[in-house]
Amino acid sequence: MVITSLENSKVKDYVKLQQRKYRDFTNTYIIEGEHLVIEAYKAGLVKELILLDGEKVPFDIDYIYVSNEVMKKISTLDTAPTIMAVCNKSNSSDIVGDKVLLLDGIQDPGNLGTIIRSSVAFNIDTIILSENTVDLYNPKVLRATQGMYCHVNIISRDAIDAINYLKDNNYIVYGTNVNNGYDVREVDSNDKFCLIMGNEGNGVREGIQNMCDKNLYIKMNNAVESLNVGVACSILLYELGR
Amino acid sequence: MVITSLENSKVKDYVKLQQRKYRDFTNTYIIEGEHLVIEAYKAGLVKELILLDGEKVPFDIDYIYVSNEVMKKISTLDTAPTIMAVCNKSNSSDIVGDKVLLLDGIQDPGNLGTIIRSSVAFNIDTIILSENTVDLYNPKVLRATQGMYCHVNIISRDAIDAINYLKDNNYIVYGTNVNNGYDVREVDSNDKFCLIMGNEGNGVREGIQNMCDKNLYIKMNNAVESLNVGVACSILLYELGR
Repeated sequence: MVITSLENSKVKDYVKLQQRKYRDFTNTYIIEGEHLVIEAYKAGLVKELILLDGEKVPFDIDYIYVSNEVMKKISTLDTAPTIMAVCNKSNSSDIVGDKVLLLDGIQDPGNLGTIIRSSVAFNIDTIILSENTVDLYNPKVLRATQGMYCHVNIISRDAIDAINYLKDNNYIVYGTNVNNGYDVREVDSNDKFCLIMGNEGNGVREGIQNMCDKNLYIKMNNAVESLNVGVACSILLYELGR
Repeated sequence: MVITSLENSKVKDYVKLQQRKYRDFTNTYIIEGEHLVIEAYKAGLVKELILLDGEKVPFDIDYIYVSNEVMKKISTLDTAPTIMAVCNKSNSSDIVGDKVLLLDGIQDPGNLGTIIRSSVAFNIDTIILSENTVDLYNPKVLRATQGMYCHVNIISRDAIDAINYLKDNNYIVYGTNVNNGYDVREVDSNDKFCLIMGNEGNGVREGIQNMCDKNLYIKMNNAVESLNVGVACSILLYELGR
């Protein structure tokens, strides 16, 4: 059977998943396109496949066929893909491992996705998203991760609580400060650390900087006020991972 | 006098500058918002200011006042700014300085803008854009540079011609290869170099890799195929600038 009606209740539910509140309510989200679906399948996250009529069923998972028109309605892309999947959100809430990244206030979905991709590249174990950070399950974030969000433990937690926990558990906590920081090239390598990145416009909140063991910066030309936050975070992770 | 008609010939010309072919034809482009306008003014690039009716004239430059409706029509932003400027394109065509970046096929405006910002941060002297690279004067590119495009010599040239010129002039030419490259951490610092970055999906073209003195890569976790090209380029420039 192929679902062709935009009024179908399943279709309506899937369209609603474009909104964060409905993703939060159902604990599910949608990913679009073959690459993301394969990564999520390998990680055991896929609940149901949404296939364009005529496409092959790639894995032994519940699926529905839909018309092109329905696919377009559910998709957030300009060009709808031929495969999408409904996935279960992670229920992880623990900080695991020795290398932690805390993101406090990142707003741009592309930046969050890029940072997640770099975090996996540089062996981060846990990424903590504070409540004022863009939703991990925003379709633009997931796309920018290139599926790498499946390869790292990502949790939501209050920033201050997380920092207190990390300090109690002997993590070195690094903030960032573009004006008055400690050159990351001079930092000794540490087995257990947490790097904190703040909002695109404002950086790490002053109250949080005061809680950090060190505030880092990247040495650069004076003409430049700051780097893109995804770039800055990636360079810091690259250096801290030496 | 305040221009209020969307049919005004000046307004029509400015709207056309949203298209590359018209920017190429007139050798001008538009920048939006105070920060970009200030940076362009300091660099002597501003030809005419476009101000929302009632705004102060910030510099001694020709200006026009327009209505909110006209501002919205000329702007490419969701929320139109209160100040824009028509600028003259750079007429530079020479490779200057010892540190050169060649971008061959970058397609995403945000990536190009981010790379330009990082290039200034890490003291690149000349950025060469090959013909298959997104237009520097695309509004999204200019915005992502945060105005930093005014602080570096950016030229357009055929990639192969440029590489031959650089080799003849004793620049070390570095390509990139994510599968089979030379770890950038192991590279000796060089006074005269050119780094080449390729397209988001395909990387540096094989024919170009073969022309390079070395193809570099960034050591990372095997789960990750590649980094975002803006991140990868920034890390390489950061390392090569040691």
